[in-house]
Order: sequence, then structure tokens, then C-alpha cells
Amino acid sequence: MRTIKLTLAYDGSEFFGWQIQPDRPTVQAAVMEVVEVVTGERAPVHGSGRTDAGVHALAQVASFQTASGIPAANLAKALNRQLPHTIRVLAAEEAPAGFHARLQARAKSYRYRIYRGGICPPFLWRYVHHFPYPLDEQQMIEAAPLFQGAHDFTSFASAEPPAPDERQMPSKSLVRTVFSSELRREGDELVYTVRGSGFLRHMVRNILGTLVEVGKGRMSAAQIPEILAARQRSAAGPTLPGKGLWLVSVEY
Amino acid sequence: MRTIKLTLAYDGSEFFGWQIQPDRPTVQAAVMEVVEVVTGERAPVHGSGRTDAGVHALAQVASFQTASGIPAANLAKALNRQLPHTIRVLAAEEAPAGFHARLQARAKSYRYRIYRGGICPPFLWRYVHHFPYPLDEQQMIEAAPLFQGAHDFTSFASAEPPAPDERQMPSKSLVRTVFSSELRREGDELVYTVRGSGFLRHMVRNILGTLVEVGKGRMSAAQIPEILAARQRSAAGPTLPGKGLWLVSVEY
Repeated sequence: MRTIKLTLAYDGSEFFGWQIQPDRPTVQAAVMEVVEVVTGERAPVHGSGRTDAGVHALAQVASFQTASGIPAANLAKALNRQLPHTIRVLAAEEAPAGFHARLQARAKSYRYRIYRGGICPPFLWRYVHHFPYPLDEQQMIEAAPLFQGAHDFTSFASAEPPAPDERQMPSKSLVRTVFSSELRREGDELVYTVRGSGFLRHMVRNILGTLVEVGKGRMSAAQIPEILAARQRSAAGPTLPGKGLWLVSVEY
Repeated sequence: MRTIKLTLAYDGSEFFGWQIQPDRPTVQAAVMEVVEVVTGERAPVHGSGRTDAGVHALAQVASFQTASGIPAANLAKALNRQLPHTIRVLAAEEAPAGFHARLQARAKSYRYRIYRGGICPPFLWRYVHHFPYPLDEQQMIEAAPLFQGAHDFTSFASAEPPAPDERQMPSKSLVRTVFSSELRREGDELVYTVRGSGFLRHMVRNILGTLVEVGKGRMSAAQIPEILAARQRSAAGPTLPGKGLWLVSVEY
């Protein structure tokens, strides 16, 4: 058996997230279907992690095993011919035996885009969260780096039950290490960039919801350490919509 | 009665063009519907011209008459609240009595985007025509300005019967004046920009189809004057897809 590593870009707008679900279009289901068409084998395709409904990916990584002898470069072309235009295989490579996109991911980077203009251009609304109301952006920019470091992120974890994928994780610890956490203004957008060892479900969207509370003056940057220490979801801000979130890269 | 001038941006992906049609979502139908909700009046909303299925607009102009006293600025907000996110009113202004978005348009500018990279990003595919095959771009760039000037554009007009709008035009002449016509490389895209007194149906898409034939070496830049002189549709290249076309601005 060969192990194939796929790098995928997708527009999450029309998918109910990454993970396969009955009767709903998902990215994983679409990729597994075309892998089956191209290789003739029904194989599980493991993503580096799930992305929720509406979340986009510039470079998601996935892996699967195949007995097929199709060269990796041809595989990328064949998959792209069958996939919807909203999912593209950017690269298909031979990976070492035992490579697993989720289990071996060492770091991931995400981006979150908040559109600050009064009228959200129709060409952007699938890709950003539109928030045209007043915000103290300077306070938010100062608060963003306070998420850096190793923290128990219970306050920022989804209150929903863990997904099957997460249950299989070796550790149930909610400690994650954030290597960098930065918010900045780029034109009409506030862009948040975060790189970390791993992320809990909804973690980035909850960090953003908390930063927006800081921008509204309902929370202060100084409270971030307390919110982390509280280890309860209700201490942090709300979950911002999935459509502003982008999985930027996965490192191995 | 007051006359209102609307400036509209829209993502044409999910519409069957501008013009109202039975049982199909169109931009004009969507705008007329919300104008009725907001003003309480069913009024025709005239666009500066029709855009075909898939064609986008950065600043389409439309006009309608109303007896409603709602201030123009409030009107824009009220319409945006009701419209789908794929259509935005960028501005609503009081126009002089008798203003008509189509009859008084003096010039229009369009853009056409051809994506040249091997893999079209999922976030762009609604907005560009993907053509990853070899093209002599320099020949195309040299051919583009040959469309400038006043020409009979019969060779570049849709062979389909004219739409009702066009039948009402005072002149049946197929002479149009192109003020500027330029193709250039912008990153991974070939971007065509054209400004003219008016455009026949499919004219820009047929110019582009002809430029692509030049790029393929099937036609030469030197043939453009002959193709114009031939005054028959079959002399020019094919019609490129609507989704790469953008209505950029309308001048009055």
C-alpha cells in the first residue's frame, strides 16, 4: 500500500464542513468519492482536522492509502477533473508509510477576516465576517497576543460534545500551545492570524468572539488571563461565524 | 414622482443575468421585489443595460420612479437589509426628473479576467474564466487596441435575436465607439479593460474569444480589421463564458 498526502484548497460556503455526514455535502465526502472514482478503491481520507460548515481552507492536508499505481502527479490532475470547482487538489505526493494527516500534524495556522466597511462587497461576503459597528480596534490588537503560550483553552472550547475524531485523540487535555496570535488592520479588514500546536473545536472563532467583546468595551485585554484561568466556556465571548475562518497551513 | 438612481454591485454567479424572467432568479427581479417591499410600490427598475447569466457588476446603475418620501440614504440601507448578500446597493441618490439609467448612459467600462495558472483557486472560479493552456500573450496584448474607434461590430454581436430592451433602442445601427481597449498581465491573470459608448450583446465576450484565437495562433492581430469589416459573426472567435466578465462602471 502507498500513502498519499493531499494538499487541498476549498471554499467552505457550500459544504457542511470537512467531516463526512449522512445526506449532506461535505468536503471529506466529496474527496473520498473522487478518490474512489480515480483509484477504484473506497478508502478513508483523513484530514489534518475537521473544519466546520462555511470554513475555508487555503491548504488543508489529508492522507489516504491506496494500492493503485497511478503516479502522484497524475492523481492530482485526475482528482481535480472530477472534483467540484470549489475544491482543488493543490498537490498530491507520495508520503512515507504510516503518514497520517491528523496524527502527525505539528502545527496549524488559521486566519480570521472581519470586514469593517459599511457595505460588504458581494464578492467577499462568503469569505469574511461582516462587522460594520464601532470597535476599539487598538484594544483588540493589544489583546490578541495574550493568547500566546501554553494554556488550558477550556473557556474557548466548544460546549458541544466532542466529535468522534477528537475522542480518538490520545490525550483529553484541553491544553494547547499558541505560538503566535496577532490581529492587524489590512485595508477594510481586521485580520487575525494564529499559529499553534493544535486547536480545539471553535477555539479560533471563540477567541475572535472574545476579541470583539474587547473591541466593544464589554471585556478588557487585561481580563484575558482570567478568562483563560476560569476554564469555563461562559467566561469567554461568543462564537463568531465560520465563514470568516480560513485554515491557512498545516506543518508536519 | 421622484426619480432614484441606484448604484449596484452584484455577484452574478447565482442569477440568470440582470433581466427579469419568469421562474428564474435575476438581479432585476430581486431589486424590483425589494423596492416594492420598501416603497410599497411595484415600479419598473431600469438597468443601464442587461448583464448575462454569471456576469458580475462592480457598479451597475439602475433607476426607478417612486412617490415614496423615504430619503435616498435610508432607501439604500432599507434595500440592503432585504436584498440577498450577493446584491448590494452601493448608493441611492435623488436624480433629476426624467433620468433613465439606460437611455442616458454615455459610456460603460467592462473588465474580463482570464486566470492563467494551472489550478484555479476555489475562491476565484466564480469570477474568472480559467484558461491554463498555452497562449501567445504578447500577440493578444498587441491585438487588443485594434478594437478602439468607431466600428460596425456586427461580427462581434450575438447571433441570438435581440432582447426587448434592444428592440426599443432608437437606432438599430451596430456601430459602437470603443474609447479604449487594453489587455495586460496582472499576476496570474490576463485582464482586459474596455471603455465604450455602448456594447452589443456578447460583444466583450466575443472580443475576448477572438483575442484568445489570436493567442492560440489561429488568428493574427493583423486580421482584426478584416474581421470587423466582414460584418458576420462567423468571422470572429467564439463567445467566452459570462463569469469572467465584470461591468465596472457606467458614465452619464
